[in-house]
Amino acid sequence: MSAPVPNATHAPALRSWVKSANAPGAEFPIQNLPFAVFSSTTGSLHPPRCGVGIGDQILDVGACADLMGDALARAAADACRAPSLNDLMRLGQPAASALRHRLSQLLAAGSEARDAVAAALIPLSQAELHLPVRIGGYTDFYASVHHATNVGRLMRPDNPLLPNYKYVPIGYNGRASSVRVSGEPVRRPRGQTKGPGEAAPTFGPSLRLDYEVELGLYIGAPSMRDEAIPVGSAWDHVFGFSLLNDWSARDIQSWEYQPLGPFLSKSFATTVSPWVVTADALIPFRVPAAHREAADPQPLPYLFSSTDQESGGVHVMLEASLCTRRMAQLGLPAMRLSRSTSAGLYWTFGQMVAHHTSNGCALDTGDLLGSGTVSGEAEGAQGALLELTAGGSRPLHLEATGEQRSFLEDGDEVTLSGRCEREGFVSIGFGECRAAILPAHGASASEPTHAR
Amino acid sequence: MSAPVPNATHAPALRSWVKSANAPGAEFPIQNLPFAVFSSTTGSLHPPRCGVGIGDQILDVGACADLMGDALARAAADACRAPSLNDLMRLGQPAASALRHRLSQLLAAGSEARDAVAAALIPLSQAELHLPVRIGGYTDFYASVHHATNVGRLMRPDNPLLPNYKYVPIGYNGRASSVRVSGEPVRRPRGQTKGPGEAAPTFGPSLRLDYEVELGLYIGAPSMRDEAIPVGSAWDHVFGFSLLNDWSARDIQSWEYQPLGPFLSKSFATTVSPWVVTADALIPFRVPAAHREAADPQPLPYLFSSTDQESGGVHVMLEASLCTRRMAQLGLPAMRLSRSTSAGLYWTFGQMVAHHTSNGCALDTGDLLGSGTVSGEAEGAQGALLELTAGGSRPLHLEATGEQRSFLEDGDEVTLSGRCEREGFVSIGFGECRAAILPAHGASASEPTHAR
Repeated sequence: MSAPVPNATHAPALRSWVKSANAPGAEFPIQNLPFAVFSSTTGSLHPPRCGVGIGDQILDVGACADLMGDALARAAADACRAPSLNDLMRLGQPAASALRHRLSQLLAAGSEARDAVAAALIPLSQAELHLPVRIGGYTDFYASVHHATNVGRLMRPDNPLLPNYKYVPIGYNGRASSVRVSGEPVRRPRGQTKGPGEAAPTFGPSLRLDYEVELGLYIGAPSMRDEAIPVGSAWDHVFGFSLLNDWSARDIQSWEYQPLGPFLSKSFATTVSPWVVTADALIPFRVPAAHREAADPQPLPYLFSSTDQESGGVHVMLEASLCTRRMAQLGLPAMRLSRSTSAGLYWTFGQMVAHHTSNGCALDTGDLLGSGTVSGEAEGAQGALLELTAGGSRPLHLEATGEQRSFLEDGDEVTLSGRCEREGFVSIGFGECRAAILPAHGASASEPTHAR
Repeated sequence: MSAPVPNATHAPALRSWVKSANAPGAEFPIQNLPFAVFSSTTGSLHPPRCGVGIGDQILDVGACADLMGDALARAAADACRAPSLNDLMRLGQPAASALRHRLSQLLAAGSEARDAVAAALIPLSQAELHLPVRIGGYTDFYASVHHATNVGRLMRPDNPLLPNYKYVPIGYNGRASSVRVSGEPVRRPRGQTKGPGEAAPTFGPSLRLDYEVELGLYIGAPSMRDEAIPVGSAWDHVFGFSLLNDWSARDIQSWEYQPLGPFLSKSFATTVSPWVVTADALIPFRVPAAHREAADPQPLPYLFSSTDQESGGVHVMLEASLCTRRMAQLGLPAMRLSRSTSAGLYWTFGQMVAHHTSNGCALDTGDLLGSGTVSGEAEGAQGALLELTAGGSRPLHLEATGEQRSFLEDGDEVTLSGRCEREGFVSIGFGECRAAILPAHGASASEPTHAR
């Protein structure tokens, strides 16, 4: 298996008869074609089904099944009548690629079926987007060495990175049932916390509520129990990617996490974007695995393939922005907090998939793998407030309003966005992953909910 | 809500017209009525459905729906036609209790419907038992202070118990898709391990494969997102309990677990018994919460209710036994390794449910909560080889064959059993939770698979 090569569906000259798809900076040009699950908010009501984003429209793919031609694309289009992407994803990469290829033809300028396809387009302004995937298992990795180092430094200044980090793609099982789609608010969790000088813990609203900028990978073709996926074949099981915000209550986390890892500090909410950008759409943005320092160990053989080293990285620029309640009231735009690239991850997604299955653990269609917080070395490339504020000790100044933030306050809205750009190719976007913080249930006046 | 009181379905004088149910020491007397999902291995084939164990028979509950009388019991019996217990469990405790009450009448000596019910009985010898529940989330706790202390002592001899233990019911998210039913073999996992004197890790079959004796709780009535279940109401959400073996690769675990907890060392396999003993059947065996030492903190208010303190414990005697390949070849019986009671758990199941939902995390029907390894203080009350052999340093001598065991070897079969006994009540059993170890895939002669 050699590195994937961009094909006709990525051609920069390719344009769509859907005019908004050709606008400069459009997130969903014809080179993207991300999937979502949608329902119409106007006209005839129908149950949620799978669609593809094109410009400012979403295409009801199942409604175009008769236009598919070849059997594989037809089967894939038929699977899009379901209320989640799982049926489509389970068909595997060849089917997803066949569908993409045909949809690209149908949506391209000069398409012979323009009228029939146009009848299946719904403006995004009239669509509600749902959680796109029925997620059976959710695993969160820790693949950014910069994040691991920054977090480790707060806890162990002289020994930030644990000895296993450069050998093991560290991960843990998250709570799949807590994953929700962009737009649904997140309630501030309550939990046990114990401050540095306190003799005993207390129970109340988290005072150190944080977000984490991540990329999420959805498994397409499943693996069998007792079957290890070789790192060189990992992408055969990758359907696509979403933005992922792994909300974290830092005060709950630091008290609970020994010895079995984070639990309630994470399981209250995880937000994903509604759009799943396919592995095919990302081919032009595949890059070599991140550079390892000379002193670093080589990946163990089960984590090494030359293909993966050459093209196992993915270059998605990720941004987090914050809009406080006051900023919203004043009509001010959200303020960017960070900007980082998934190309810098120490472990590739192929290595994560190979590691996850190396003990015989099966991966099922719809399983979600988070990258862990995507942070970089540069100033402003840290994907969580914990890092940006040095554990809360250096609050951010929000110049537009004069506010400060160590951690999130009630009414704050965090939005993640993602974009792939490369010279000679049309850039593509990921949509947004957004949620606002609601006050804790039962929070009384005696319980402060301001970040400490 | 006061402590539950045994009712007519627990009456020791109650006997069944199914003779085998009245045999001394029967696991499934009429006072038990545990649920399972079964299919017949002879006669007319039918898809898996829900049944109730009685003596050496299983009752096809759905086939008895017309005999139910009241509407709640009827709805519960109808739900038993499904291939998992989830539909029944979702109906909640009143429905499960109504069904139990009616089944008890139908199966009692003198039942007016004996002939009709007898037609729906299948001998267990002609039934295949399946995974009883569709498990969406699996959480494993760490509720035995003796286990936590024993394991902690191996790692931190002078400070075995971490400071959070007596405040926080420690738990972590397990891998739901790896849960399988008793009888399915477990393949020895491969993984990264690093021995004490080794400069770098290597990848190969685990050499420190272990079991863990646990009790598993299945959630019946679900909770809502952002809803914390009060500890005093926790049992309204408990459908029942199974035996659970949380297989663990200790060498993979010790290398991977910092800082995010166990992952691949556990996710290769978890085995549950096919029978779910209902919360109702366990009422006579409810006991006060385990005694806290005078120096121990009181549970925080969200983990405290007087009812829970008075009757939140469950007294199930759990046993683990081992049959090596050689013992099987010689026709020798399995050897008991340990015997411990869940009455000694530091945290009650009610506290685990309350803690799990205290941050707003929803629990869904079919979610599985493991107790963590059930160990006691006494000699032979340790529910894992790690504890029984002091980390492998004091191998067990298997007198019958002259073999030794530090950890499990290929061909070893581990069986868990559970039994409730109380003076004045008929004792009930949990069936068995059994699996044999298969060699690692691709293990070559150069890779030893004997325990070190």
